[in-house]
Amino acid sequence: MVKRYLVLRSLDEALALLTTTFTPPDRIERVPLMQAVGRVAAEPVYAKYSVPEVNLAAMDGIAVRSRDTIGANNTNPVTLDHFTRVNTGNIVPPEFDAVIMIEDVWDAGSSFQIRKSATPRQHVRLAGEDIRENRLVLPKGHLIRPFDIGALATYGITSIGVLEVRVGIIPTGSELVPLGVRPGPGQVVESNTIMAQVYLSQTGAHCTRYPIVHDDPDLIRKAILVAVKENDLVLISAGSSAGTRDFTESVIRSLGELVFHGVAVKPGKPVMLGRIEKKPVLGLPGYPLAAQTVLREFAAPLLESWGFAPAPRYPITVRLAQPLVSDLGFDEFIPVFVGRIGPEIIGTPHGKGAAVQMATVKANGYTHIPASVEGYESGTSLEVFLTTDPGSVERTILLTGTLDPALEELAGLAHNEGLYIHATNPGNISGLRSLQTNTCHAAPLSLPARSLLTSYQPLITYGEGLDLAFIHIAAMELGIASRDGLGIGDLTKARFINTRKGTPSRSVLDTVLAGECLDPAQVDGYLLEVHGPPAVAAAIRNGFADAGMCTSGIASAEGLRFIPVAHEDYEIVLRREMLDDKRIRTLVSIIQSPPFHAILEKAGGYDMSLTGTIRGLNGDNVLAPLSPGRLPAGDL
Amino acid sequence: MVKRYLVLRSLDEALALLTTTFTPPDRIERVPLMQAVGRVAAEPVYAKYSVPEVNLAAMDGIAVRSRDTIGANNTNPVTLDHFTRVNTGNIVPPEFDAVIMIEDVWDAGSSFQIRKSATPRQHVRLAGEDIRENRLVLPKGHLIRPFDIGALATYGITSIGVLEVRVGIIPTGSELVPLGVRPGPGQVVESNTIMAQVYLSQTGAHCTRYPIVHDDPDLIRKAILVAVKENDLVLISAGSSAGTRDFTESVIRSLGELVFHGVAVKPGKPVMLGRIEKKPVLGLPGYPLAAQTVLREFAAPLLESWGFAPAPRYPITVRLAQPLVSDLGFDEFIPVFVGRIGPEIIGTPHGKGAAVQMATVKANGYTHIPASVEGYESGTSLEVFLTTDPGSVERTILLTGTLDPALEELAGLAHNEGLYIHATNPGNISGLRSLQTNTCHAAPLSLPARSLLTSYQPLITYGEGLDLAFIHIAAMELGIASRDGLGIGDLTKARFINTRKGTPSRSVLDTVLAGECLDPAQVDGYLLEVHGPPAVAAAIRNGFADAGMCTSGIASAEGLRFIPVAHEDYEIVLRREMLDDKRIRTLVSIIQSPPFHAILEKAGGYDMSLTGTIRGLNGDNVLAPLSPGRLPAGDL
Repeated sequence: MVKRYLVLRSLDEALALLTTTFTPPDRIERVPLMQAVGRVAAEPVYAKYSVPEVNLAAMDGIAVRSRDTIGANNTNPVTLDHFTRVNTGNIVPPEFDAVIMIEDVWDAGSSFQIRKSATPRQHVRLAGEDIRENRLVLPKGHLIRPFDIGALATYGITSIGVLEVRVGIIPTGSELVPLGVRPGPGQVVESNTIMAQVYLSQTGAHCTRYPIVHDDPDLIRKAILVAVKENDLVLISAGSSAGTRDFTESVIRSLGELVFHGVAVKPGKPVMLGRIEKKPVLGLPGYPLAAQTVLREFAAPLLESWGFAPAPRYPITVRLAQPLVSDLGFDEFIPVFVGRIGPEIIGTPHGKGAAVQMATVKANGYTHIPASVEGYESGTSLEVFLTTDPGSVERTILLTGTLDPALEELAGLAHNEGLYIHATNPGNISGLRSLQTNTCHAAPLSLPARSLLTSYQPLITYGEGLDLAFIHIAAMELGIASRDGLGIGDLTKARFINTRKGTPSRSVLDTVLAGECLDPAQVDGYLLEVHGPPAVAAAIRNGFADAGMCTSGIASAEGLRFIPVAHEDYEIVLRREMLDDKRIRTLVSIIQSPPFHAILEKAGGYDMSLTGTIRGLNGDNVLAPLSPGRLPAGDL
Repeated sequence: MVKRYLVLRSLDEALALLTTTFTPPDRIERVPLMQAVGRVAAEPVYAKYSVPEVNLAAMDGIAVRSRDTIGANNTNPVTLDHFTRVNTGNIVPPEFDAVIMIEDVWDAGSSFQIRKSATPRQHVRLAGEDIRENRLVLPKGHLIRPFDIGALATYGITSIGVLEVRVGIIPTGSELVPLGVRPGPGQVVESNTIMAQVYLSQTGAHCTRYPIVHDDPDLIRKAILVAVKENDLVLISAGSSAGTRDFTESVIRSLGELVFHGVAVKPGKPVMLGRIEKKPVLGLPGYPLAAQTVLREFAAPLLESWGFAPAPRYPITVRLAQPLVSDLGFDEFIPVFVGRIGPEIIGTPHGKGAAVQMATVKANGYTHIPASVEGYESGTSLEVFLTTDPGSVERTILLTGTLDPALEELAGLAHNEGLYIHATNPGNISGLRSLQTNTCHAAPLSLPARSLLTSYQPLITYGEGLDLAFIHIAAMELGIASRDGLGIGDLTKARFINTRKGTPSRSVLDTVLAGECLDPAQVDGYLLEVHGPPAVAAAIRNGFADAGMCTSGIASAEGLRFIPVAHEDYEIVLRREMLDDKRIRTLVSIIQSPPFHAILEKAGGYDMSLTGTIRGLNGDNVLAPLSPGRLPAGDL
């Protein structure tokens, strides 16, 4: 029996071990002032001299003795003979104790007249006002920011001792090729250690990436020994799972002590920690999102426990747009797309696996689901940490419904207008429900032709009470996709792949079979269900099946042949008031633009005669927004 | 008459001019992937190939045909002869469409037994699942983050075209010396352009700092012409006020067009914008905090309007600890110290001038008061933008009351324990009021000796209903400070400087004068009031006055001679439950530590026989916390 389970530790327990097992390195690096931004002061920094060193004028004007000005007012102006003209920053000679602004003096030949008395120290920057010689400027442990650099320069500081740490990063895996080499089938670019280096360098760590080590215990052993000697922390990428070629654990055991292997965290479960020559050796899983979790939730906190700057976490509270299921007992980290709908901040979690790096590229946040939580209901208030500037929340459009390649093209164009489209694909009914609960900006739906819209049952059930508008994307055909041009007559001969009950393509298939007097049992694969038309097309493209129902657009995008069977309209449905939203107006202007038409034209399979028109449920024409940010004087 | 007022524009108007008068530079820089972090994609980035390019195993196990597994369950295991052993990431050969985890198979010699059927695509990463060839990875305008780099490497991208901008920065001013040269009296280190370079470089701008230009219109003209030719944006530092040597405006007028000079913003009012050879020339005021405002509120938004990453603004809502007065008609930007008191986030604004760079070094946030606001009451909810990691909120201790150098020493030690002490000095009564409203962690107060505490009127008035604890810092003397050792008998001969009515030192003076049967009118300067004892000592040190009342510690810190007159206890007063706060426990352990005693000993003027003891108002002993983070099993 080939079987190995990891004994999992809890995240808390693992973090406690990680941050208490090792002694912080005692390295200080002296860097020139201008290179100190983002670093942490390793020792207190004191002012070299007082600033200012002598009393200075804080305004342009005249330096005076305040005692000479007593009693001056509008009816009793005082003429001053004893003064000196000063500009801001000039020395106030010791005999003077106040400055009168130039706006408040009247030239009287060789003297000045004033109409208001001056108080002592008025408009005078006292010696040492900003800082006194040898006083603390930065405490030990201060994270140095750009504006700190200005102050430090002012106080005569030209270099700073900052915390230094050396991190060695070892990529392992015979399937790896270096960046710049095109991977062959089954090979991948060695990207996780690049990501680790870039991520940890942000905290000021000096990272050394070692050459790729093949899956050979002796080579891995040698590489670890070198890295441990040269660094304070060693990351070893991949080789930490339970496959036949995962040697990291045994190598760590042979060189030192295994602190843990396996933590109840997702993604990132196979994370491993060893202790070799008293130094931490952290094993990163191979999946990119798992590696990210380990970098962010293990490597960064270890460096933080050593005094380095914490990775900034900017929390925002969102209302969850969809239910979020989590494994009890696992701390889970899930990318979240955060957007504003009206006054509310809405978060849509990303459901895909740890191999999909595009999830974190597209998402603007993530959430941490504690081990004790099984999941959250839709609508729950949830804390999300943003991964980019908070302005991204205002630039995000959340779409929920039925996806089609046309929408991906639209998103591509919208991105270049500064909008982030996040579209999830739970289907028509979920899209309508999401409109009901106001947790999406709009729902892209595959609908019957417009004349039949008022009798479309889901719209009647879930759209009740909503004043909806329908932005037409394209009309398209639903039909049989195949690699070989199969038609209705071939359904009993080919390996079919189906979609779930209740989906439009399943309904169309059932109608077709009934029309041909065929029993579903005659269709090989009728019971093999995948998620939706895109999965059908992918399955056919990949050879899992020979035929299935999908749209002309999807079939075209997957390079499949297509026999049309039925017609549908692909529309973006939204609450009518949402047409006032600036983002939606931009989206509409893109839908109405020639580039979008050209792209759909080129993709093929789309009828664009209604593209960009906006109607209400009863077919009334809605005046289309003319341009982003400007609405026509219509009745919206 | 020497008189010049600027005609001020509103901030909104100025920003509109700034962001619409100029054409964005059309520069693209191609950088190697690992140098792209923090930069903005200048063009869309597409995947070089699909990831994965072929179907891969998503688990360690065996690749199978799902059709072979139908019907397998615990009572009817199925033996599979046709399979291949795969590790995570291995190619799934085209004949197979599912992977069964190694944990779910039973070795049966040359075959495997399974007890559960496999669905198509189970544990298979389909070709193109992460991304498909030529699909959009980053839209134009995407701010590139460390984890994006991992994805880009995976997708075969080795370099990226990012937005580039060249910024020329010209320091002007005859009083400037370069960093590394000790400024003479009236000179300052040329630090604002260093700060500008470091700040703008964070957005990826290429900054060129030019040599210091003296206050000479011809030299300034030449420098601007060179900088305009070589850059897309020119910053000219200082010379923008209305002093006799502020030539920037006239030089800009002679070379091009003055767009505005003077904006209703504080600090930063003299900001100036010119247009020379179609390029923006932005004049920074000389005061550091004014220069910061112009960098953050003008230069950064200009770059943002050109597509560069916005400076991240992380807002937090605070309750204002003190009233905040603002000039109507001016947009004001004020450093704020943000800390958590119990469940509430409290913000204390910084009151000092634009010359005090230490304000932004110490503060962890700032607030923007719109022009239409005259001020906020204490207790108002206010939006603050954090300037460092949000964790700083948990590390900040807010102290309000009466300051003494002993507290500064304490703060220095606390800083090195990772605590930021923010202490404001509005006096005893304000400190007690702040305890009442729970807007400070603790109030440092100058109090009568402990035996007289229960009859101290402010404590009776404002401490009512509060269960207070008193942490003793030091006992000290109040007395007459002077440069020449003046005593009570000299009060009628010297130039005296007083503190405001109601302050402890004023009361002591009045008692002394009454005791000596002296009329205040006999004391020259009795009516000259400054803010408190530190200001008294500074005034004497700076020669504005000859004598005044302050504490022995302050006199010692200012190097003055001192004749004691009365006794006082310097104590940190706080709500008793605050002793449970981890930060306060750390603070107490520092007060009780030998290094703090040694520092006060060295400073002189302090009696430390009670230092570190904690009592209640009625003299009851409070068990002192033994160590940070751990409380004795006492009755706190």
